[in-house]
Amino acid sequence: MASLKRAGKVVCIGRNYADHITELNSARPKQPFFFQKPTSSILLPGEGPVIRPRGVDLHYEVELALIMGKQVRGLNAQDEQSAMDAIESYALSIDMTARNIQNEAKKKGLPWDISKGFDTFLPLSSVIGKAAIPDPHNIELYLTINGKVRQSDSTELMLFRIPRILGDISKVMTLEPGDIVLTGTPKGVGRVAPGDVMRAGIRVGGKELEEAKMEVA
Amino acid sequence: MASLKRAGKVVCIGRNYADHITELNSARPKQPFFFQKPTSSILLPGEGPVIRPRGVDLHYEVELALIMGKQVRGLNAQDEQSAMDAIESYALSIDMTARNIQNEAKKKGLPWDISKGFDTFLPLSSVIGKAAIPDPHNIELYLTINGKVRQSDSTELMLFRIPRILGDISKVMTLEPGDIVLTGTPKGVGRVAPGDVMRAGIRVGGKELEEAKMEVA
Ligand SMILES: [Mg+2]
Ligand SMILES: [Mg+2]
Ligand SMILES: [Mg+2]
Repeated sequence: MASLKRAGKVVCIGRNYADHITELNSARPKQPFFFQKPTSSILLPGEGPVIRPRGVDLHYEVELALIMGKQVRGLNAQDEQSAMDAIESYALSIDMTARNIQNEAKKKGLPWDISKGFDTFLPLSSVIGKAAIPDPHNIELYLTINGKVRQSDSTELMLFRIPRILGDISKVMTLEPGDIVLTGTPKGVGRVAPGDVMRAGIRVGGKELEEAKMEVA
Repeated sequence: MASLKRAGKVVCIGRNYADHITELNSARPKQPFFFQKPTSSILLPGEGPVIRPRGVDLHYEVELALIMGKQVRGLNAQDEQSAMDAIESYALSIDMTARNIQNEAKKKGLPWDISKGFDTFLPLSSVIGKAAIPDPHNIELYLTINGKVRQSDSTELMLFRIPRILGDISKVMTLEPGDIVLTGTPKGVGRVAPGDVMRAGIRVGGKELEEAKMEVA
């Protein structure tokens, strides 16, 4: 099965769930837009806590991650079969974000890379075999803080579905085997305070996926 | 010597030469800011032309690239020796930019990744051994279009010097051996029209460096 340390790049979709766009007072995109997180931000299970940089308003965003198994270039978004075939496996991920730095960058028209890219800002679950997720557009992602549910929504709420996402990215950047694609976060994002414990997971047909379970301090 | 295909990430400094900031009507940054280009955008010598995406206003930015030889985390910007020791070698690079997409992103507060990240948007020279550049803050970078000089300036004009750049980046993202750091472009950036030929190079003490010579269509 895929190693999560094999990623050449991590590409993330922004604003892909309508209610999350509303909660951040953002504009609804006409087409998917995306940004990168550095591979150095990956935090694997058991590697320890998310490190909180000084002065940072730290936010969680739970997201389904795709792990690519094939090279993808200029994919036709109508070609659902090729899109699905290009995925090797999945993972659950938390797109940690320095919200104050991101808001400042947005205001000044500056890149998002610092706000998204600190070391440990990409906690990942174990690799989830493809067979465990028969339909990636019909699973439930959840995230709790200290046991309280903060995010819990179905991936059927994605504005742009996976073939469209992979089509748009791969018309700009060739995706390589091992690359990781984050598919956006549902509503409910918010602050992580010092000492908070995040738990996240995936339910498929109401049943918890063991491989997807995450616990990060 | 380093392979340029070993890069785990490519990190680029923006607005690091005063006259370039003026020509783009940008604000002078109080501290270095940076963004990533995907490793999939790397174009090695002999790999062919830069591909012009449809509708893109394609701009060149010649830059000195550092190729890291050590892991760097939280480097002290005062520690010039450690900064220099962490560099394994150099390359010349052209930070190709879809200026219209970048301007649109700036206006909307969106990430820069698409504008900077198309396949082939990072032409690199051959690897330049460290000994060939005794002082990276005192070399001349140049770029010509169809034989006309468009950029030609000394790296002594950098606003933030290399130890500061590596300090600021590595306080956010750990740099790994093989990672590439672009140090910003001097004034003179502009459009590449279809059919234009870019040539770029480095002069050290007035003498052309053979390894740095680039020719890209
Ligand atoms: Mg996100
Ligand atoms: Mg890598
Ligand atoms: Mg540049």
